[in-house]
Amino acid sequence: MDVVEVVPTFEQYAFTFGGVVPLARVRPGTALRLWSEDAFNGALQSTKDLSSEKVDLRFVNPQTGPFYVEGAEPGDTLALHFVALEPARDWGASAAIPFFGGLTSTDRVATLQEPLPDKTWIYEVDRARNTVGFVATSVDLRVELPIEPMLGTVGVAPPGGEVRSSLVPERFGGNMDTPQMRAGSTCYLGVNVEGALFSVGDGHYRQGEGEACGTAVEGAMTTTLVVELIKGGAPLWPRIEDDASWMAVGSSRPLEDAWRIGAVEMVRWLGELYGLSPMDGYQLLSQVSESPIANVCDANYSAVVKVAKALLPPATAFGGLHEELRRRAASLL
Amino acid sequence: MDVVEVVPTFEQYAFTFGGVVPLARVRPGTALRLWSEDAFNGALQSTKDLSSEKVDLRFVNPQTGPFYVEGAEPGDTLALHFVALEPARDWGASAAIPFFGGLTSTDRVATLQEPLPDKTWIYEVDRARNTVGFVATSVDLRVELPIEPMLGTVGVAPPGGEVRSSLVPERFGGNMDTPQMRAGSTCYLGVNVEGALFSVGDGHYRQGEGEACGTAVEGAMTTTLVVELIKGGAPLWPRIEDDASWMAVGSSRPLEDAWRIGAVEMVRWLGELYGLSPMDGYQLLSQVSESPIANVCDANYSAVVKVAKALLPPATAFGGLHEELRRRAASLL
Amino acid sequence: MDVVEVVPTFEQYAFTFGGVVPLARVRPGTALRLWSEDAFNGALQSTKDLSSEKVDLRFVNPQTGPFYVEGAEPGDTLALHFVALEPARDWGASAAIPFFGGLTSTDRVATLQEPLPDKTWIYEVDRARNTVGFVATSVDLRVELPIEPMLGTVGVAPPGGEVRSSLVPERFGGNMDTPQMRAGSTCYLGVNVEGALFSVGDGHYRQGEGEACGTAVEGAMTTTLVVELIKGGAPLWPRIEDDASWMAVGSSRPLEDAWRIGAVEMVRWLGELYGLSPMDGYQLLSQVSESPIANVCDANYSAVVKVAKALLPPATAFGGLHEELRRRAASLL
Amino acid sequence: MDVVEVVPTFEQYAFTFGGVVPLARVRPGTALRLWSEDAFNGALQSTKDLSSEKVDLRFVNPQTGPFYVEGAEPGDTLALHFVALEPARDWGASAAIPFFGGLTSTDRVATLQEPLPDKTWIYEVDRARNTVGFVATSVDLRVELPIEPMLGTVGVAPPGGEVRSSLVPERFGGNMDTPQMRAGSTCYLGVNVEGALFSVGDGHYRQGEGEACGTAVEGAMTTTLVVELIKGGAPLWPRIEDDASWMAVGSSRPLEDAWRIGAVEMVRWLGELYGLSPMDGYQLLSQVSESPIANVCDANYSAVVKVAKALLPPATAFGGLHEELRRRAASLL
Repeated sequence: MDVVEVVPTFEQYAFTFGGVVPLARVRPGTALRLWSEDAFNGALQSTKDLSSEKVDLRFVNPQTGPFYVEGAEPGDTLALHFVALEPARDWGASAAIPFFGGLTSTDRVATLQEPLPDKTWIYEVDRARNTVGFVATSVDLRVELPIEPMLGTVGVAPPGGEVRSSLVPERFGGNMDTPQMRAGSTCYLGVNVEGALFSVGDGHYRQGEGEACGTAVEGAMTTTLVVELIKGGAPLWPRIEDDASWMAVGSSRPLEDAWRIGAVEMVRWLGELYGLSPMDGYQLLSQVSESPIANVCDANYSAVVKVAKALLPPATAFGGLHEELRRRAASLL
Repeated sequence: MDVVEVVPTFEQYAFTFGGVVPLARVRPGTALRLWSEDAFNGALQSTKDLSSEKVDLRFVNPQTGPFYVEGAEPGDTLALHFVALEPARDWGASAAIPFFGGLTSTDRVATLQEPLPDKTWIYEVDRARNTVGFVATSVDLRVELPIEPMLGTVGVAPPGGEVRSSLVPERFGGNMDTPQMRAGSTCYLGVNVEGALFSVGDGHYRQGEGEACGTAVEGAMTTTLVVELIKGGAPLWPRIEDDASWMAVGSSRPLEDAWRIGAVEMVRWLGELYGLSPMDGYQLLSQVSESPIANVCDANYSAVVKVAKALLPPATAFGGLHEELRRRAASLL
Repeated sequence: MDVVEVVPTFEQYAFTFGGVVPLARVRPGTALRLWSEDAFNGALQSTKDLSSEKVDLRFVNPQTGPFYVEGAEPGDTLALHFVALEPARDWGASAAIPFFGGLTSTDRVATLQEPLPDKTWIYEVDRARNTVGFVATSVDLRVELPIEPMLGTVGVAPPGGEVRSSLVPERFGGNMDTPQMRAGSTCYLGVNVEGALFSVGDGHYRQGEGEACGTAVEGAMTTTLVVELIKGGAPLWPRIEDDASWMAVGSSRPLEDAWRIGAVEMVRWLGELYGLSPMDGYQLLSQVSESPIANVCDANYSAVVKVAKALLPPATAFGGLHEELRRRAASLL
Repeated sequence: MDVVEVVPTFEQYAFTFGGVVPLARVRPGTALRLWSEDAFNGALQSTKDLSSEKVDLRFVNPQTGPFYVEGAEPGDTLALHFVALEPARDWGASAAIPFFGGLTSTDRVATLQEPLPDKTWIYEVDRARNTVGFVATSVDLRVELPIEPMLGTVGVAPPGGEVRSSLVPERFGGNMDTPQMRAGSTCYLGVNVEGALFSVGDGHYRQGEGEACGTAVEGAMTTTLVVELIKGGAPLWPRIEDDASWMAVGSSRPLEDAWRIGAVEMVRWLGELYGLSPMDGYQLLSQVSESPIANVCDANYSAVVKVAKALLPPATAFGGLHEELRRRAASLL
């Protein structure tokens, strides 16, 4: 299996879902190895680089893409299987950006208070130990945290001619910021436009659930993924499958609505997998769901509703595509 | 270490936090073995028992307690260490109650739609396999799910002379409905009134995060716990500690506010544990938190913000009380 | 018609709905003239009195009551007709209380930011012009604003044995903080306990809709009201009627849920008044409702849904009680 | 003063803000007379026309525009003064659309319940009496309601290259659905792109605040407006001025965030008008604001925060432009 390598130039980044000409055309079955810039567009390289001074808001969260998937039509299902995510730099950056984040007032949660301090943390990568280092500024504390690479942003072009900022998570995917988007996962997205026009970006060397301060350990990433297409069967909202779990991701405000969306999508999926009526699916979900929050900082909040496969009888989704992609991916590693 | 056994009569149950005379007085250090009735007050025993016909709303979510803890004063910290939770019946019940639950309109999320069907599921306990059985009604599916006992409701009397229904989760604890409230956990609650007046109840043989339909596998429970008291140091919101994690539980509406409360409480705790400034704690939390939703169905929604101890340097909370209680508990098993 | 005068001593104030012995028993039809202290319990008398230094949080929002209404039983409807509201002092006070209000983070909307400044404004009453004076502190500006007296808090004892802080608006009424609660209005509340046990307080010499900073022009008030009782017919949520409008008040979080509650209650009321089906009531409401926000600062937010009588055919609610009370009130003025 | 008449063909309608080539170029000072189709694109003409059968979701809420305003640059302020709004048909239509509206679950407020009935109401226009007729379907009731024409949707192209559905209210204006957008009002919008690219549409013959069922009395409209441009001074969120009031409109979810946005924008405006510090503006607003909800049904909810000019000393905004436009408009009537 060949792997197509893509390293965009700055001019080639996309900053929206929709509204951008394809970077390349790919056939279903293609493996891609994609370089993505970090969400700050590489602007924060030292703790002295403050977001208010260095980050150009026109160029945040650059996406690698979009890719036109041949044969993809509205109503189809795009499957992206993540084979490997590798930090592409020796450091990651995180920042508390004034009036952005989960524990501060924002342009939406508008108050009259002063912002929190503008502050940047740099995390050195230790490749031998596979860690990133948190260095406290208020006390003498350094914590080596395991690298757990993920993509904050994965999406397709939205329907209805809309063009949305890459900062937004929505029905089309986008900036969901869930740690579940990692190597070994398959993400299913409903196709809204011809060619699907998917992009990925916003690599995180690690991120806590909720992404409290609004930024993870942001870092350039090399992502290896396999693209597949299922004719028809588009889920209403993004779904993720890995070897252990079925997942649905809802994105909206308030956060309970994000959760409700994910939970209803999962009731639908349980119906597809096991033939359960909505009421039976609702009941079963009530006893088996995991509900990790993804983000409480973005333009929409995101919540994941998750069911462990081990709890339920064996079943296959989308014709067993995830298992098939796992096998194909093995040949790439 | 002696264990005081309490099996309340029906007349002895409490249906509120606050406003009830103590069931008993206990000294710090006491171990209790408490029987609690299920949240339906035992009214649902077959799939033919519908909540609208059988459940008496005056007597839902009965609590075992309150217990007056000698020496407890406002500003102190009550610690309840759960030694063992054992299903006290051979079946549990769950129900979709009209206009109650997370995926239906309710008295708060008021719409003009018809309610979902009133429906009851009975879960038989298989003690040999340690499972409860979900039986679908729409297809021929039976799923044996592991018993993972927890208490939905643990709380103390609220401040300001308030008396709150046992259905409400709040700053005083109450009906938080988090699966984290299980054997091996220590729950820390700020004391608001002399004697603390804590109660426990709402045993769940298992529950998914979010408690989607509003009820878990509800069952009578035998809970063994050790009561301890720390003078001063009251957390603003409930905290939970187990061998693996530090946790804070926020309860409010909308759900993002519940999460924010838990996250700010955890920033405070990280400050206490490691001397981190709020900004450093905010940053560290952003990269290490787990954020499992507890419930999206109760009078307030609850969210847990959790940090794995393994990620951080060793530290002890409340003078190492959890570790000490684990040792004491070992002698009771 | 006689008027019973009540001027409570400090020890006689109630700080909760429920949990308080009646201040007096009244027969339906009684007219009361009640003195109420301001929400700060009179603690802010100069711009130098800061809330953090002077206000004792145990004694905020004192209520005059509760009154036991003879014959009132659960399911009945208490009607309180406000005949006159008169400022009982020559000044009112307002304050920005740290971490309280609509444009600041709070204990619920928890952030890590610093609070806004603790600040007090005093409004002198000009009885000749019937105004209160706003005096700016940042520029040389003084604005005489019309006195429009209202009661922030009107409620009955809650059901289920609950006792709630007088700061909370809920189904039982309480701290709704709507300017619609003024002379000429009749407030209908469902009775939850024998005797209804209503209280009133929290006089505002005027208040903007939303009560942005969390406090109005708070002032001691002399309220003349007539108490009536309707057997049965309890509305689910508080209703208000004046000569011009029908109104329903919802209180919850998030604010859309408060509005939904009020809107569904108004659809019910339109059904009672005109025999409209819920769908017809929903449609009509969509074209005629006014929706003034009451408060976005209290423990629950409150929204009013209002319909102008002039838009609809003549109709009478509760047997024409409001009109009857207006007639009786005329004899008191 | 000349008036440029524009009656678009179907192909000329815009269904998004942004992403559309200008329909025409206009110089500041131009008066336009615009025909706009109703939000259903004319598809509902009888009570037998159901939205699920007749409404083509690709073509809802057609906008007349966009207009390229010569000289308009990002950071400038577009002023649209509404001179006259005239119903362009003899009937309007309203519908309860399944899973759309404020008192039903939706794609966001996701539940498992059945939708409300799909139902259409037709309102005949009586030009002599200036009314539209509500006809109940459940009882024999017909209500003549005053025509109070307004535009649900007024906006400019969003920033950042985004293209947004005409169903969305946001910082750029759009589908705010406030009855305040009527003849005599001036709407101020921050310009995000060269030429501003404004559009208008979604005429309502009348609408209740909240737009409970999701649709007003929707009707084709003839709108006469004057376009003006202020260099610089862009407000962060839409503002509206009429002879009686200053207003700011916030749009977000949950509804309290929409209100917060509007309230903070109004504090800024009071600062501009009177030199008040934010704390003084916050205090003054707390006592004088009106807070009518605009919509609780759209992709974002909208809330208006309003201050009556009569309460405050005389002041002029944007150099007295509103008064000047009123004068100019008089010559057009």
